Amino acid sequence: MDPAWLPPEAFGPLGARRTLIRGAGPLVGTVRGEVSEACERFGGEVVRDGPYDLLLELTDGGLGPEDHTYAREGGTTTVTASDGRGLLYGLFHVVRLGEEAFTRGRPREIHRPATGVRMLDHWDNVAVHPVMGQVERGYAGGSLFWRDGRARGWTDRVRAYGRLLAACGINAVCVNNVNVHATEARLLTDRIGEVAEIAHALRPYGIRTHLSVTFAAPVVLGGLSTADPLEDPVRDWWAAAARGVYRVIPDFGGFVVKADSEGQPGPFTYGRSHADGANMLAAALAPHGGTVHWRAFVYDHRQDWRDRSTDRARAAHDHFAPLDGQFADNAVLQVKHGPMDFQAREPVSPVLGALPRTRLAVEVQATQEYTGQQRHVCWLGPMWSEVLGFRPEGGLGPSVGELAQELVAVSNVGDDPFWTGHPLAQANLYTFGRLAWQPDADPGRVLDEWIGLTFPGAPDRLAEGLHRVLDGSWRTYEKYTAPLGVGFMVQPGHHYGPSVDGYEYSPWGTYHFADRDGIGVDRSAATGTGYAAQYAKPWADVYESRETCPDELLLFFHHVPYGHVLRSGRTVIQHIYDTHFEGVEEAEEARRVWAGLAGLVDPARHARVAERYEEQVRCAREWRDQVNTYFLRRSGVPDAHGRLIY
Amino acid sequence: MDPAWLPPEAFGPLGARRTLIRGAGPLVGTVRGEVSEACERFGGEVVRDGPYDLLLELTDGGLGPEDHTYAREGGTTTVTASDGRGLLYGLFHVVRLGEEAFTRGRPREIHRPATGVRMLDHWDNVAVHPVMGQVERGYAGGSLFWRDGRARGWTDRVRAYGRLLAACGINAVCVNNVNVHATEARLLTDRIGEVAEIAHALRPYGIRTHLSVTFAAPVVLGGLSTADPLEDPVRDWWAAAARGVYRVIPDFGGFVVKADSEGQPGPFTYGRSHADGANMLAAALAPHGGTVHWRAFVYDHRQDWRDRSTDRARAAHDHFAPLDGQFADNAVLQVKHGPMDFQAREPVSPVLGALPRTRLAVEVQATQEYTGQQRHVCWLGPMWSEVLGFRPEGGLGPSVGELAQELVAVSNVGDDPFWTGHPLAQANLYTFGRLAWQPDADPGRVLDEWIGLTFPGAPDRLAEGLHRVLDGSWRTYEKYTAPLGVGFMVQPGHHYGPSVDGYEYSPWGTYHFADRDGIGVDRSAATGTGYAAQYAKPWADVYESRETCPDELLLFFHHVPYGHVLRSGRTVIQHIYDTHFEGVEEAEEARRVWAGLAGLVDPARHARVAERYEEQVRCAREWRDQVNTYFLRRSGVPDAHGRLIY
Repeated sequence: MDPAWLPPEAFGPLGARRTLIRGAGPLVGTVRGEVSEACERFGGEVVRDGPYDLLLELTDGGLGPEDHTYAREGGTTTVTASDGRGLLYGLFHVVRLGEEAFTRGRPREIHRPATGVRMLDHWDNVAVHPVMGQVERGYAGGSLFWRDGRARGWTDRVRAYGRLLAACGINAVCVNNVNVHATEARLLTDRIGEVAEIAHALRPYGIRTHLSVTFAAPVVLGGLSTADPLEDPVRDWWAAAARGVYRVIPDFGGFVVKADSEGQPGPFTYGRSHADGANMLAAALAPHGGTVHWRAFVYDHRQDWRDRSTDRARAAHDHFAPLDGQFADNAVLQVKHGPMDFQAREPVSPVLGALPRTRLAVEVQATQEYTGQQRHVCWLGPMWSEVLGFRPEGGLGPSVGELAQELVAVSNVGDDPFWTGHPLAQANLYTFGRLAWQPDADPGRVLDEWIGLTFPGAPDRLAEGLHRVLDGSWRTYEKYTAPLGVGFMVQPGHHYGPSVDGYEYSPWGTYHFADRDGIGVDRSAATGTGYAAQYAKPWADVYESRETCPDELLLFFHHVPYGHVLRSGRTVIQHIYDTHFEGVEEAEEARRVWAGLAGLVDPARHARVAERYEEQVRCAREWRDQVNTYFLRRSGVPDAHGRLIY
Repeated sequence: MDPAWLPPEAFGPLGARRTLIRGAGPLVGTVRGEVSEACERFGGEVVRDGPYDLLLELTDGGLGPEDHTYAREGGTTTVTASDGRGLLYGLFHVVRLGEEAFTRGRPREIHRPATGVRMLDHWDNVAVHPVMGQVERGYAGGSLFWRDGRARGWTDRVRAYGRLLAACGINAVCVNNVNVHATEARLLTDRIGEVAEIAHALRPYGIRTHLSVTFAAPVVLGGLSTADPLEDPVRDWWAAAARGVYRVIPDFGGFVVKADSEGQPGPFTYGRSHADGANMLAAALAPHGGTVHWRAFVYDHRQDWRDRSTDRARAAHDHFAPLDGQFADNAVLQVKHGPMDFQAREPVSPVLGALPRTRLAVEVQATQEYTGQQRHVCWLGPMWSEVLGFRPEGGLGPSVGELAQELVAVSNVGDDPFWTGHPLAQANLYTFGRLAWQPDADPGRVLDEWIGLTFPGAPDRLAEGLHRVLDGSWRTYEKYTAPLGVGFMVQPGHHYGPSVDGYEYSPWGTYHFADRDGIGVDRSAATGTGYAAQYAKPWADVYESRETCPDELLLFFHHVPYGHVLRSGRTVIQHIYDTHFEGVEEAEEARRVWAGLAGLVDPARHARVAERYEEQVRCAREWRDQVNTYFLRRSGVPDAHGRLIY
């Protein structure tokens, strides 16, 4: 087993005990298997009756299917659930607690996930894409699921993946790229058997399988002349397609759709709304209990940079807010957490507060497209936590975590031996799952949980070192990359490494408007694109004004002179210089800390991380120097501290 | 036959006459075939004796093998040559003269090429390269020679290609990319048969075949542990390899080598000089009459943009000038015309005046990598003519055209129906051949010759229209792209379209150093990199001073403020604005002229050009707006004429 959380040692405390398991069903079988294996290894026993340390019991307790109770009373630990899924999550709860589960008394408590679907979207292609490769935006090797144009049948690995996911609370996986190309389209119909194989391997861990489909499927697969969602033959075709899917995958989760987005087909072709499109698919899935995840990532990706009136940040709200209340019950609007595209710093999408009568999924990106591509350590827990804690209506209103019915992350996993390329990037995957289960969890605590589960029995020096290099790594990354929320400034195409003007004259709607006097995008209502007014108050007011806008988002909302004084007291230009020097220093320090952990981590894993730190430090310096040089050349303002800028 | 120069009508005047051909040999056979075919079509006759209008005769006249005489006296036209090659060139001379060859008297004149080898280098890959494709920097479809990993056996087309080349004076073709990858390396040994097939098809038109080889061949193909050029086993291996080649291609031209350049292996690996490397290959080829073409394109392509002391422009001179006199007689140093890389404007390479005791080939680029990629009309005749007319020692010294023993162009031909993608890009290929034959030819006259040969009997309006859209197109392209010789500013990787900072922070040594105050590279000896001092006087002095440096090269040699007044009287910044507006206007005007030629050109060719003009105008506007916006943002200086800058 390749290194991840849940190495055998994580089951040590449980495996040394006597466990009684009551109940039946496939997932109870999974629980039984886990416990038996641990007992074989650590000397405990699965008992049929009599004295036990741990009871895992299926009961009728008015619990939801994923809920479980936990109690330690009278020297016995008890987990109950009304369904195998809940029992499995209860088992992993015991594993997470470790020795404490058998030593510290605790009155009965109920654990239930805050969200119904906690999904990973794999942007995996079946046929290798000539530009995007096997996994679009993948930084962990090839795909777990697909190779050489077909399902690779790596059942053991997929099952092991499902186990890792279940242990952090994830219950759904979408197995193919939202950009559905010709080969992948056919997974819906004649190649559904390959999807069924994957579903079969994931099912024992309570993971439902979803499929990305192309909106044009009735035309490209069905031979119809239209994919108009209001045409009966089209609706019939989708209904039949859904029936075909459920025949082979009875617990199929549903469809994921990227429509009218970056060249993908959609309802706009037929003059229909996105509600029309989503509802047609929802209707096809409804009889079978499936859900359609409809992505809100709709914007003009052929924008003219000369056109200052169009603002990509506005697009999702402009398109979707008017549709609130029109979506079917089993249609979920899947909304990226920010208005742009997974930058290291964005405001929370105004869409997330704007559709109270619509099921919402918040989409985050575990794969580090814009955050170092798993060559940089960038633990995103705190960023996601900030998003989930944001209250669109201000102080007393609900948080995004409370508004979201579902959480979705783009997976960062591939066929890499360390699962995620960078071994420490596993922390992002784990943290996503735990935050999806409990959005208001303290991310720092989740991080320690991951450390504990991944390095059971780690000496304090290791645990503290791991915590130190991960916690704060997102802010370090932010420091040495694009400043103050302005975003992008990456190399076009692959998005790795700096290019300050890389997207400045592109059709992608991603500009910073730096000139010799200042920088930033005026998105105010008074003088800019009006994006700030898409928020409810008080945020609309907070963002509208340069004086109240948080520093870290200033350049997202305002164009300001380089001499503008931030709330921090520094000028913008000095902030740019300072943060870029600091960011590199922090990366160098993290590398040093990691080097000091040699001997405490298995050599292969230590070497892999050490090698990636070399690249991170190199790249961070490149970011620092390019950004600082660019702004020195533009502004002519020297660094107040006289540091070297080229 | 797809449209190019030499359509059947070009042979009309000759084909209507009586021609006597005296002599024998393979190329005389080619001549006979050409004349016979023309006579069949146009009613003339190849006579065995008796009265004739044209005599084509092989004689012993002390002529070189490619020379021929031409005379029209007493109502008879006479061409003599001492070799079939000369006779073939004489035939094409008659074809070019057209009706005049039979109507205007002319005393005997001798025609001989100024250069011995007039070569096209094909950057064609055998196996499709994952990034560069079938043809590296190719903009005319696939390769004429290779497809699906092997010789495509397109004999008729290759022969037709040879015919087009012979008609403009080209006598050598290198059939594979100078970047020699694994598959291509084997052409030297077990796959030489595929090269022989191509040589067979080209031979009837006097074209010798050359091959790009990897310096590491003894290791990668021969299994030796070293490729050290001074080691006997290595020398023996190459000698044997050459013998193997000549066994199947007796008239093989020789090797082309890109060594120690952009990642290709070379003698530096073994601590040997480039003379050592080239001479070893020369020694292997010498017994068979072959030549090695050794490229001087050696520089540090992993430069750090922060390092201001390294200047890529200096590299070729630094590396090769000290080696003068050390190269074997059959080793040719192949030097790019400029010190950088085929930009629309560069100074002439100082290498071209610096090795008086070395055989030099001047390399130009017919394929339009940096000059519009055959989507823009950019006729390079005037640029090449300027290069060939440059006198490295000033007024009385020899010109580059006189110093160069050979001329080489990177081919712009592929399997496109129009040969070169853009039908008008054929003019570059033709002009190269004619300038290689006669470097001091007037390029405007060559252009008209191409027009006449390509559109025989064209009405004046067509001939004038073609001349108008081609002549001046290079200066138009220069106007709307990078200003004043500073170069690059292209999109990284593919090099199409603008990106002002695209190469500013790259490892490629290609910088403009624009800041809020000024722009340009200080290459003076007094305060800069010292590149200017690589020239002999008077050029070293001319380039050293801002006051005497030609405007069009100012930013190549000097870093100046935006307000610097050019010799033209305009400031640099106003020059940038003006030329970018003018360049677009000129492109629009050319599009208009072309549109007016509809009906005079066959519809398919007219449509292809018209469609490319749409792209050219779009792209020229993009250049204009990005460049102007960039410099307005940097400089803060408004356009004196108040035109729209974004």
